[in-house]
Amino acid sequence: MLNTFTSGLRHKNIHRRSNAPMVAKKPHDIIPTLGESIRIIPLGGVEEIGRNMTVIEYGEDIIVIDAGIKFTDYETPGVDYILPNIKYLEERKDHIRALVITHGHLDHIGSIPYVIDRLGNPPIYTREFGALLIQKRQVEFPHLAPLDIRIVEANDTSIPLTANLKVRFFGVTHSIPDSTGVIIETPYGDIVNTGDVRIENENGVPDQREIEHYKMFKDRNILLFCMDSTNIEQPGFSLSETFILKNIDGIVAAAPGRIILATFATQVERVIEFIKMAQHYSRKVIIEGRSMKTNVEIIKHLNLVETSHIIPIEDTTKYPPNKIMIITTGAQGEEFSALMRMSNKTHKFVRLERSDTIVLSSSAIPGNERAISKLKDNLYRHDSKIITYLDSDVHTSGHGRRGELEWLHKQMPYKYFMPVHGNHYRLKMHAELAARLGCPRENIIVPDNGSILEIQDKGAKFVKLREKAPSEDMVVEGLSIGDISDVVIRDRKMLAEDGIFVVIALVNTRTGYLKKSPDIIARGFVYLRESQELLSEARGIIKRSIEGTTVGMNPINFDYAKNAVTEDVSRFLFQRTAKKPIVIPVILGV
Amino acid sequence: MLNTFTSGLRHKNIHRRSNAPMVAKKPHDIIPTLGESIRIIPLGGVEEIGRNMTVIEYGEDIIVIDAGIKFTDYETPGVDYILPNIKYLEERKDHIRALVITHGHLDHIGSIPYVIDRLGNPPIYTREFGALLIQKRQVEFPHLAPLDIRIVEANDTSIPLTANLKVRFFGVTHSIPDSTGVIIETPYGDIVNTGDVRIENENGVPDQREIEHYKMFKDRNILLFCMDSTNIEQPGFSLSETFILKNIDGIVAAAPGRIILATFATQVERVIEFIKMAQHYSRKVIIEGRSMKTNVEIIKHLNLVETSHIIPIEDTTKYPPNKIMIITTGAQGEEFSALMRMSNKTHKFVRLERSDTIVLSSSAIPGNERAISKLKDNLYRHDSKIITYLDSDVHTSGHGRRGELEWLHKQMPYKYFMPVHGNHYRLKMHAELAARLGCPRENIIVPDNGSILEIQDKGAKFVKLREKAPSEDMVVEGLSIGDISDVVIRDRKMLAEDGIFVVIALVNTRTGYLKKSPDIIARGFVYLRESQELLSEARGIIKRSIEGTTVGMNPINFDYAKNAVTEDVSRFLFQRTAKKPIVIPVILGV
Repeated sequence: MLNTFTSGLRHKNIHRRSNAPMVAKKPHDIIPTLGESIRIIPLGGVEEIGRNMTVIEYGEDIIVIDAGIKFTDYETPGVDYILPNIKYLEERKDHIRALVITHGHLDHIGSIPYVIDRLGNPPIYTREFGALLIQKRQVEFPHLAPLDIRIVEANDTSIPLTANLKVRFFGVTHSIPDSTGVIIETPYGDIVNTGDVRIENENGVPDQREIEHYKMFKDRNILLFCMDSTNIEQPGFSLSETFILKNIDGIVAAAPGRIILATFATQVERVIEFIKMAQHYSRKVIIEGRSMKTNVEIIKHLNLVETSHIIPIEDTTKYPPNKIMIITTGAQGEEFSALMRMSNKTHKFVRLERSDTIVLSSSAIPGNERAISKLKDNLYRHDSKIITYLDSDVHTSGHGRRGELEWLHKQMPYKYFMPVHGNHYRLKMHAELAARLGCPRENIIVPDNGSILEIQDKGAKFVKLREKAPSEDMVVEGLSIGDISDVVIRDRKMLAEDGIFVVIALVNTRTGYLKKSPDIIARGFVYLRESQELLSEARGIIKRSIEGTTVGMNPINFDYAKNAVTEDVSRFLFQRTAKKPIVIPVILGV
Repeated sequence: MLNTFTSGLRHKNIHRRSNAPMVAKKPHDIIPTLGESIRIIPLGGVEEIGRNMTVIEYGEDIIVIDAGIKFTDYETPGVDYILPNIKYLEERKDHIRALVITHGHLDHIGSIPYVIDRLGNPPIYTREFGALLIQKRQVEFPHLAPLDIRIVEANDTSIPLTANLKVRFFGVTHSIPDSTGVIIETPYGDIVNTGDVRIENENGVPDQREIEHYKMFKDRNILLFCMDSTNIEQPGFSLSETFILKNIDGIVAAAPGRIILATFATQVERVIEFIKMAQHYSRKVIIEGRSMKTNVEIIKHLNLVETSHIIPIEDTTKYPPNKIMIITTGAQGEEFSALMRMSNKTHKFVRLERSDTIVLSSSAIPGNERAISKLKDNLYRHDSKIITYLDSDVHTSGHGRRGELEWLHKQMPYKYFMPVHGNHYRLKMHAELAARLGCPRENIIVPDNGSILEIQDKGAKFVKLREKAPSEDMVVEGLSIGDISDVVIRDRKMLAEDGIFVVIALVNTRTGYLKKSPDIIARGFVYLRESQELLSEARGIIKRSIEGTTVGMNPINFDYAKNAVTEDVSRFLFQRTAKKPIVIPVILGV
């Protein structure tokens, strides 16, 4: 697992498994050369939601779109982040001309500090808000070379990246300022990637500005269209952000005391509106939560909203409750978040009261339901008023639902379609949508991570190669970055369920008898203090098992004794407890 | 943690912590005597959804309603089930007159095999379907005394349980046959517990049979009303079961090949309708999944539906695909469920095909979203048609939404209200609903697990005592049942994140020097084979650290050396990996 990744520590560049025996080449070792085609390889984001990265390759030039991370889950305990596998790119580092960023969310920029040097530090093209977020994050990695960031405008004229490839950014509605889609202009036509996108609308009718905006595609020659599939499962249009802000405005207007608005820090545009709302109602604003503070710093820096009414939390008590708005993270029930601390009375400055109104302006991210339940249980222990999306329309997603996706398809005169940004089943549903809207099935490819797609014959053919780019998970764990080790993860899962049982025995190498009663160390197995009888029986079994093999054996075969005691102890513990701890025998000869 | 729970093994009755020093009495050690009041104690189910159990106590008599389990989650790795804490009952075992069961779901009957002997094997009053499920489960616990099950009818006349307490069952609409609410008739009035309940309705208008049925309460003297709060968050009425069955019927009618219906085995009434549907469309039925098979056995036994068209799975190929219906568990993405095996091509008899239609007739249970995503990813790898509740109305809950709860409140002329069956926030929302409907706030109590509520002064007062019944989690883990050990759980979580690092050193007690280079055993930490340099540095640190304390020390203080090496090694590993494995030093003097 360990190419030791160094932050301020000694830099290593261990070539792993360099001593490993030669093995049969896997398909990705024999990827054919490119020829005249355009190659498209999604390295992440198409078997999951997260770690987005798409490679566009033509001739000797590679453009990379986005470099995101995915957060870990119970499937990979101990892992911090999961990255796209970039081996294909590392092997072609000299061809990489640009990393193009669609917007500043972590599932699009989070990998940059872990991969940028391995990609040869290419220039990063991004709009300003994304640039600031990238730079802010980079501060935590002081050993890295400075980034070559090139700030661009949306709807600019095209930017030439190579002799044959240009990029053009176009603004999209999402949830963070400066969200864009990108057009990669190739000799055979455009490759359009929407990035994350929704359509502002009123009851399912797109806003006039959206309609006008997408007219720019009417006359373009779109060879390949790639699009966000996150909310394909939800029929219709999502609620408009305008509508939910109006609802929250009404709640703020009616709140008798403090108003506490909890949302994702990534909902930057909504946070900007909250800050405006506070000014309108003459409330001072307190910003809580590290990521929220980071983003508000950038909002301030860019002068996106008047912020003179933001006050430090220490000053809360200088104003009456009905003059206070707290904007905080923690609506997902994160363990040490500001809102969780308010809810369980461990927050340094905020004690919840009956007159408080708390709005959870978010929905539950799959997997967070239990944490959110806990948060709500804690919040409801106070007598504050609590409003969630179930009771009132106080949240909408930054990703368009099926109706919005359908509308977008209709704005794009494309030839080929590749759904991205979603689990396999979402992509498959998105492919079905495209087919239903008239795209010939042979013009649609649902990729996996590492799938190599090619547009061949000057645009006449769209195929998926038999070969794949390396796509095993790459993980960040502590200071290391590298392949995931199945062995280690399997051990962790076993340890989490049944713990570990270490047996220590000193054997007299001359006689084969134990020098003294064996020692036992167990963790995560059973509560030892209450299991003395079990331990004492186990000691007897250990002694009998080891001596049964070692007494009279000369010289003593310790491996043989270890296997015997592991088997006997495991069987005994399972019979007595129905648990299977990892049994580790330490047998020392003296 | 270990009162060893014995199944076929030696029976133990260890009094844990018998040697522990005297500690200050906790409130629950000094619970006042009962006097003339009626005591109500929810021992489970009011800080969670699951492990329902409510105690009703009057004079020298105790009635227990339900004995459920809760399933474990990532908060308690390695634990199998969580039980209600029954210490209050164990201490008053001689007063227990009856265990009354509302219906046969595991969150209402699952604890029986673990607690029934500790409760002194009281008679169990239940309707027939519940009785069969209880008996089926009991077969797995052959060492237990036979159960004293007394099968009752709903809407019977009251059954006298003691001189002062009678019980009467009333049928309710839920999702399993023989679901009931119970009325405990006391000298001061009725205690009504709805059990799990929904209201069959058409577009929010209750079915006429529901209206007629609940008229029975019009003239009763309901002292205390206890009611299911599961779906209080959802406004309005839930979809009617009739409606969703009609939808599924349409899907079955149109399916060109096999139809695969996946739902919870607990949705027994729906399964019965599926079997009828198959007959109507001349399809043979295959039942897949252990719990589904168990429940269908009971359906057969009770003759609840014609089952002659159920065939063994081996016979599938004898019929054309459009004559087959498979009813299966696994809609929640359970790892080894039949549907998951079909989806990942490991099912022995079923290979999915393009002409198959798969209906997931369920919604996602919070916490299962990722498993369901995986299932859907696997299913969509085939070209079968897949229909979920997001796209079509193919599922409705067995628990009423807020509108249904509101309607039920209006049918019940009650004095006091105690919401049950839900997390704290759900109960609090339910209390708000009752208050809004006119119940005076002082007549409503939101309990915690172990809260002791009393109806005093012959019904004139409803209070919560300061004292609590013991309410710490009791857990089933392998063969043991007992308190949860925070130490063990904490270790398991640490092991899951960072693993374990065992250091073994032999010290020459005469010189204080190590006899040889120390051994290291690590599990779940890093992949050792790729970390040789780290290990070799660690060995150096171990040697220096131990010898730094032991050389020249006489006699050697091993604890001192262990502390030193633990600290030094932990610090080194954290600096090098940012991981904090549990470090265990084994230092042996020879």
